[in-house]
This record gives sequence, C-alpha cells and structure tokens, in this order.
Amino acid sequence: MTDSVVDRLRAALGERVDTSESGRAAMRADKSGHAADGMPLAVVHAASIADVQTTMRIASQTGTPVVPRGAGTGLAGGANTGTGEISLSVLGMDRILEVRPDDLLAVVEPGIINADLNEALAADGVWWAPDPASRDIATVGGNIATGAGGLLCAKYGVVRDAVLALDVVLADGRLLHLGHRSVKGVTGLDLTSLFIGSEGVLGIVVGATLKLRRLVPGQVHTLAATFPDVRAAAAASAAVTAAGIQPSIMELMDATCLAAAHRLLGLAPMPAGAAQLTVQTDGPAAAAEADAIADVLRAAGGSVAASGDRAEGERLLAIRRAMHPAMLTLGTTLIEDVSVPRSRLAAMFDEIARVERDHGVVIPTVAHAGDGNLHPNFIFDGPDVPPQIWAAADDLFRAALRLGGTLTGEHGIGVLKSRWLAAELGDDQWQLQRQVKAVFDPQNILNPGKVFAPPAA
Amino acid sequence: MTDSVVDRLRAALGERVDTSESGRAAMRADKSGHAADGMPLAVVHAASIADVQTTMRIASQTGTPVVPRGAGTGLAGGANTGTGEISLSVLGMDRILEVRPDDLLAVVEPGIINADLNEALAADGVWWAPDPASRDIATVGGNIATGAGGLLCAKYGVVRDAVLALDVVLADGRLLHLGHRSVKGVTGLDLTSLFIGSEGVLGIVVGATLKLRRLVPGQVHTLAATFPDVRAAAAASAAVTAAGIQPSIMELMDATCLAAAHRLLGLAPMPAGAAQLTVQTDGPAAAAEADAIADVLRAAGGSVAASGDRAEGERLLAIRRAMHPAMLTLGTTLIEDVSVPRSRLAAMFDEIARVERDHGVVIPTVAHAGDGNLHPNFIFDGPDVPPQIWAAADDLFRAALRLGGTLTGEHGIGVLKSRWLAAELGDDQWQLQRQVKAVFDPQNILNPGKVFAPPAA
Ligand SMILES: Cc1cc2nc3c(=O)[nH]c(=O)nc-3n(C[C@H](O)[C@H](O)[C@H](O)COP(=O)(O)OP(=O)(O)OC[C@H]3O[C@@H](n4cnc5c(N)ncnc54)[C@H](O)[C@@H]3O)c2cc1C
Ligand SMILES: Cc1cc2nc3c(=O)[nH]c(=O)nc-3n(C[C@H](O)[C@H](O)[C@H](O)COP(=O)(O)OP(=O)(O)OC[C@H]3O[C@@H](n4cnc5c(N)ncnc54)[C@H](O)[C@@H]3O)c2cc1C
Repeated sequence: MTDSVVDRLRAALGERVDTSESGRAAMRADKSGHAADGMPLAVVHAASIADVQTTMRIASQTGTPVVPRGAGTGLAGGANTGTGEISLSVLGMDRILEVRPDDLLAVVEPGIINADLNEALAADGVWWAPDPASRDIATVGGNIATGAGGLLCAKYGVVRDAVLALDVVLADGRLLHLGHRSVKGVTGLDLTSLFIGSEGVLGIVVGATLKLRRLVPGQVHTLAATFPDVRAAAAASAAVTAAGIQPSIMELMDATCLAAAHRLLGLAPMPAGAAQLTVQTDGPAAAAEADAIADVLRAAGGSVAASGDRAEGERLLAIRRAMHPAMLTLGTTLIEDVSVPRSRLAAMFDEIARVERDHGVVIPTVAHAGDGNLHPNFIFDGPDVPPQIWAAADDLFRAALRLGGTLTGEHGIGVLKSRWLAAELGDDQWQLQRQVKAVFDPQNILNPGKVFAPPAA
Repeated sequence: MTDSVVDRLRAALGERVDTSESGRAAMRADKSGHAADGMPLAVVHAASIADVQTTMRIASQTGTPVVPRGAGTGLAGGANTGTGEISLSVLGMDRILEVRPDDLLAVVEPGIINADLNEALAADGVWWAPDPASRDIATVGGNIATGAGGLLCAKYGVVRDAVLALDVVLADGRLLHLGHRSVKGVTGLDLTSLFIGSEGVLGIVVGATLKLRRLVPGQVHTLAATFPDVRAAAAASAAVTAAGIQPSIMELMDATCLAAAHRLLGLAPMPAGAAQLTVQTDGPAAAAEADAIADVLRAAGGSVAASGDRAEGERLLAIRRAMHPAMLTLGTTLIEDVSVPRSRLAAMFDEIARVERDHGVVIPTVAHAGDGNLHPNFIFDGPDVPPQIWAAADDLFRAALRLGGTLTGEHGIGVLKSRWLAAELGDDQWQLQRQVKAVFDPQNILNPGKVFAPPAA
C-alpha cells in the first residue's frame, strides 16, 4: 500500500473529502458535550450511495475506522470522531425521492432534516410521526440510527414504529435492501428492526422507506397543571395513563427545571418546590379528553390552566421547550435518559431525590411522562464530567434498572453509556450482541469503541 | 455417549417425554396440509423454562435437531417435525403471570391461547391487539414466532407492534432476557424485534411481556359492499385508504370465495362474478366513519348494506369467517399470503387473473384489504401440492415482488416458501441472515431446514 487512506479517498471522491483543520475539528463532537480524543483523518461529505460505498471499500481495504454521521445532534457521543478515524457524513444526501399519500409512505435519503421532511409532507396531508425535540436540526437517518423518540411518541409511536424498509451499506461496501414497501411482511429475519437504534455499528443507512400518518384533524387542547412537588406531578401523570386517556403530549418538569425556564423566559417565579405537567390532546375528541384529564389532574392535587387556543397552547409548551437552553444557564450539563414503566415514575423521582442527597449533587429532571422516559440533567462546572457525577449517574442507572427500566429511552449508548451496557443486557446477551455486530462488520471498522466497550468493573 | 437421546430426555424429564406412535405422529404436520417425512424421535411437553433448558442442553450435547411448537396451527410447515427430530411443545406453559392495566402490559408464558388471554384481559378493560383468524386455536408464543397479523391489524398493529420483552432459551440451553418493561428503550441492538417472526430458528420463546391496549369503547358499525368484479372491489378498498379513513376491519372476498362461503352457509347465491368488501369501524367516531366509508364505496360502484347492530354485524362478518372451511369444500388448499402496497391491490388481482389464465388453475382469493395482504388459495386434488400448482405459485410470488410486495405478510416462510426466500432477500442478505442465525445456533439444531434452505435454481 503506497497511497495513504486519505490519498485514496481523495483520488476517488475529490472535493467531497475535507481534510481542513476546521472541517475535521467539527467532527470531534456531537451535542453531548463530550469530544473524541485527537483529530479525524478526514471528513467525507457523501453525495450519493456510490460515495458511501467507495468510502467503505477503501476503509475496509485499509482497515480504517469509519464513524457515520448525520447532523451531529446526538447526546451520547455516537458520532464523535477521533484519531485515525474517517467521519462519514450523509448530511448532503437530503432528497425526498418519493411521497405516496395513498400508500402512506415516503422514500427519503438519510440526510434530510426531520422538520424539513415534515414541512414537505404537509402539502400532501401526511406526516412522519417521530418528533424529537431536535426535529429542526437532526436528520431522519440519525433518528433511525438512534431509534429516536419525542414528545408525541406515547400516542404516535417512536421511530421503530415508523420505518418500512432501509437501504444500508455494509462495512465492506455492499448495498443491501432490507424490508419492503408493503405494510405487512414477515419474510426472513427482521433486519430492518435490527438496524433501528443500531447507532452506526452495523452499517450506514443510505435510504429509508418511512411509514406515514395522515395529519390529525381538529384543534389541539393544552393544559398546564402545577403541583406542590414533583412526586405529586409524577403520580398525577400515572393517574392519567391509568384512567385510559391518551394525551398526545404529557411532559413533566421538576422544580429546578421549571424555575430555570421561568428565569430564562422572564416569567414570574413559581412557588418553591412546584412542579408542572404540560398536557396536550388532539384529534376529534380533543376537547372532551382535555376536560377528562383536567378532572384527573385536579383530583390528584393539581392546579390546572386549560386552553383550546393554539397560540396560548404554544405559550404553555414554550416553557417545556426552553429546557435545553435553561439547563445551559446552570452549568455544564450531562443529559441522561433513563426510562421506567409508567407506574414507576414517582418511584424513580424518589430515587433521583435519594441520589441527590447521597451524592450531594443537583439533578434537575424533565420527563416524557406519558411513556415513563426521564431526562435527569447532571449539572457541573468545567468541560469534563467529574468522577463524582459519574458515580451519581451510575447509582441512578442502577436504580432505573431495578425498577424494570432501561439505561436509555431514546438517546442511545454511544460512548457515554457503553460501560453500563452489560449491566443491563447481562454478560451472555452482551457477548451475543457483539457477535451479531461481527456478522455485519467482521473487521470492527464501523463506529468501533461505541456501544460495545468492555463493561464497568 | 452410551445413552440414546430419548433415554437422556426421559431420565431428565420423565413423563413429559412422549414417545407414543400417535403422540409423535401428531407432530409431523401443522395446518398447512404439508407433513414432514418420517417420524419425530420424541415429543417433549415442557412445563417450565427449566424443562426447555434441559431439552436444549441434551439436544446441543447430542447434536439433535429440535422443532419448537405452539399449537401447530401454522400455515407454512414451520412446526412440522420429522425423522431424527425432537418436537418441543410449549403448549402446556400457558399461565398469565402478571397483568398491569396501569402500565398496559402483561407477562405471559408462550403456550397460552390468544383468545384465552384476551378473555382474561377483558376483566381489566384491556386487550392484546394481534388477532389472527386462528385466535381461538393458536398460541401467543406461536403468534410471536410467526409475527402474526389478523383482521384488525391495519388499525391496531401486528405482533411486531405489541411486544415489549421476551425471555428466550438459546440452542445451548442458556436463558436470555431481551427488551424491557418500559415502553421506550434503545439499549443495544433490538434483539426483541429480531426474534419476532423468527419462526423458531433463533431460540425458544419461553416468556413474553406484551404491550396492551385499552378496550375500544362504543359500538362497532359494519358495512358489506358488493361489486360487479374483484378489481372494482380492490380499487374501492384502496379509495377508502386514500380517503384517509381508518376502518378497524376491511376484508375482501373474490367471486369464487364468496360463492363457496354462501353455499357453505346456505345463503342465497350472489350474481356471477360478484365480489364483496366487509368493513367495520369502531371507537367514538364509528358511526360517522361508517357513513363516510359507505359514500366512498358507493362512489366506487358498490352496493352497500350497513348496520350499527352488533349481531347483524357479526352475521355480515360470518361470511368472511367461513372462508377456511368453505375452501376445504373445493379441494385440497394451498393458502398463500403475499402482501403488496395498498395502492397495488387491484394490480395484484390482475396478476392473479393472469396466473389463473396462464397456468389453467383456479385461485380463489381473500385479502386483508386494509393492509394489502392477500391470501390466494390454490385448489387441487389429492394430498400433495402438484408441480403445476407450485409453478403457478412461483409466478404469483414473483408478481408480488415486482409490485414492491413480499412473499409472506403474516404466515412466514417455514418449509413451504424457503425456496423463494433468496429471490426476495437477494443473495447477500440471505447469506447474512444465515450468519445471524449461526450466532444464536452455531450447531444448526433449531428448526434446521426451515426458512433458510438453498434457493430455487
Ligand atoms: C436540543 C436537543 C434535543 C434533543 N431531543 C431529543 C428527543 O426529544 N428525542 C431523541 O430521541 N433525541 C433527542 N436529541 C438527540 C438527537 O437529536 C437524536 O439522537 C437524533 O436522532 C440524532 O440525529 P443526528 O442526525 O444528529 O445524528 P448524529 O448525532 O449525527 O448521529 C447519532 C448516531 O447515529 C449514527 N448515525 C447517524 N446517521 C447515520 C446513518 N445515516 N447511518 C448509520 N448511522 C448513523 C451516528 O454514528 C451516531 O452513533 C436531542 C438533541 C438535542 C441537541
Ligand atoms: C384457520 C386458520 C386461520 C389462520 N389465520 C391467520 C391469520 O389471520 N393471521 C396469521 O398471521 N396467521 C393465521 N393462521 C396461521 C397460524 O395460526 C399462525 O401462524 C399462528 O401464529 C401460529 O401459532 P401456533 O401456536 O399454532 O404456532 P405453531 O404452528 O406451533 O408454530 C409456528 C412457527 O412458530 C414456531 N414456534 C411456535 N412456538 C414457538 C416458541 N414458543 N418459540 C419459538 N418458536 C415457536 C414454530 O417452530 C413454527 O415455525 C391461521 C391458521 C389457521 C389454521
């Protein structure tokens, strides 16, 4: 081998290979706050499936690690690229290839931004339901690779429920078509599902056939309910689920979050300790459902403000949407992502309070209460997560597992949570999953060191 | 090895090992009409996870093939057990271990019959949505292993949408817990989804955590619409989907099916060539949706009978439910199961008519029109599928693939369709799927010869 990897990439792909200092530095990190050590070899800005195949052929011939990348908005460090690695960006592959409202499907390239896709689909009266809070900045391919969730997913499902077929490029450059255009199909093993949430360790998603929904008719109704403490708010959200009413959105903010958001938005301060549930209903029965939910929330001790006006509803939800910037005002943030059965939400908040006491840390927490997914935010000073924060996070993860929950409801394992993976999967399953990866990527060049790293001692 | 496999099984499991002639003979076939060559070694009636593990340990130590079995109602020959093989039945493991209406989940053993489970769940106001027409006789474990669909699945989803976690025993006897009790979770690779529809080739499902729904309130509304021919009925069903209305059930019967069902039930004969759509709506908007659908069906040339009465609705649906026995009155039946995008349903019926003409065969067809899944029935004399029927089926399968469809929407590959698997998957994916199986079952003792058999020449 006389040519370097970068020479070979450049010879094959020309200007689509970026080796500039700034171009490479930008690929070291995602939005987790964590960055890879060192600098990537090069960034490939793929414009076509053929570009992705060429990159993977050169990478596999030279044994060079490749990190697939969408918009880099991930919160687990999955797209972080470091020394000796190629960053393979599919952000430029952003076309909508086909929309079929009659079949409720669309065929897209992976780099399209979630919100851009939905804006285009609206013209046909359809939408793709997964709606991460990052929908304005994250790619559909990244959503698929992380198995993203969002605010609406208790009612309308997560990515796993919204993909019919995938085109993927394997580590050796081969292109495979997984799944089918029909809504039903059980031919062979379900590799489409296996790819969803696989965080770039099995192959590169270069095309997707998405399952769409019709736009929901009618006016949304919004409720904001204030509770004396977070435990009461969590119990109230469980009571809504137990009452059999399905809101489209049900978000919970604890006192610290709520206070920070109010400060950021210049709103009047809330009573000390107060927590809030923000609930939205939609569809033909939206008004009646909002009334029924208001009754449940009041019976659970909440003080409820309701609105059937879209603008006023957006104002109530804006407080929840301000969470991410509000947290940044408090310090550096490690955003966690545990998920528990809905009935255990209050118990999980008890555990968070215990971890705060035991470790002397503050953990402002928001939750997608409709599906039991919590985002505890660990706040600290300086750029790197200090050991005592990891110790507190470790305690929190194990508490979630004891409650029948999981390490990550929607953000993925990436680099930041790989040391806890075996604790959740068990050693046998952890080994088996690594062997499954090896079938797709025998040289271990796809996102090595992510997801599957040796378990914590 | 001095003891035989059967001796070792008996020593470990006693009376739960059946070696009687009749007991073994009963395991040679499922409901596909196809039977395995020769006789199984023994039938193990597992009563516990430990029994399943013991069986698999003995099987792997002796290299003996094992065929997992639920109720044996499969239509692809997947549970058929022949010479030198152990039939491992989990039908006796039929307990409901936990029902949590607040978390909308239930934990069950695999052998419970789908209808029995739903009867028990109704007391808590919840149900498990997958509803194969065989719900009164098929197991939940079998439903999971085949990725079963049913009449209601266009609206309420298939098995793939209704499982949170699985306990599985691997070929070597190890027990793994896949998935979690929380509704969301993206920890590691999604092996739960990989197991759904895996037809017993990856492991034995010994426990399942199911995702439930609340019972749908209100009265169902039923429509029966008659069309001059099947193409018109298919186009009408596509028009309903395209109009954005979601019926709970939308079943299509072609003229031969309809005539046979009328004969069997002693109803007045229909006009020659007439085809029928049976549509049901449910939920709070059932009446309004039924009216809107009736308009679409009339505009598409249908003559519509409607009823908001449950008993009358059941009478209209009884004609569809009589299909399986009605077909048996015509001869031996090979029930096929192709699925196409909904907009291609009429085109698929054109292809079926072409195959009938080209091969000189009759193919009465019913379809789950709401999701594009067709069951063409090949009728012939005698016990075995004659070569000209397979040639016609081959032609039909390839037509479905050309229309963007799949070989099997819900019944699976089993033995009967394994020779077409590579045609749908492509050689690369077919090889890769076999390698994935080998990770779980390196000795190839789990359902060998099923699903993955050498491709057709
Ligand atoms: C403010 C904010 C709010 C957020 N809210 C949510 C939320 O509500 N729900 C949620 O689930 N997430 C949320 N996220 C996290 C993030 O936006 C999601 O994980 C998103 O799906 C990542 O998409 P991306 O295009 O940025 O992927 P990237 O960050 O570029 O990559 C993420 C992972 O996927 C892999 N990957 C990306 N594209 C491909 C591809 N084409 N093929 C193979 N692998 C690929 C990468 O290797 C990496 O492992 C939020 C992030 C921010 C910053
Ligand atoms: C009249 C009739 C109507 C039908 N209608 C439908 C329909 O509407 N929709 C539909 O999808 N199917 C239908 N079927 C087919 C059949 O009922 C389904 O495939 C059902 O899911 C099989 O369940 P079972 O318990 O009988 O499984 P079996 O027939 O015993 O096994 C089926 C396959 O699953 C494997 N298996 C079974 N249990 C396990 C386990 N615990 N672990 C691992 N592998 C296992 C077997 O090895 C085999 O490969 C129908 C069948 C009949 C006879």
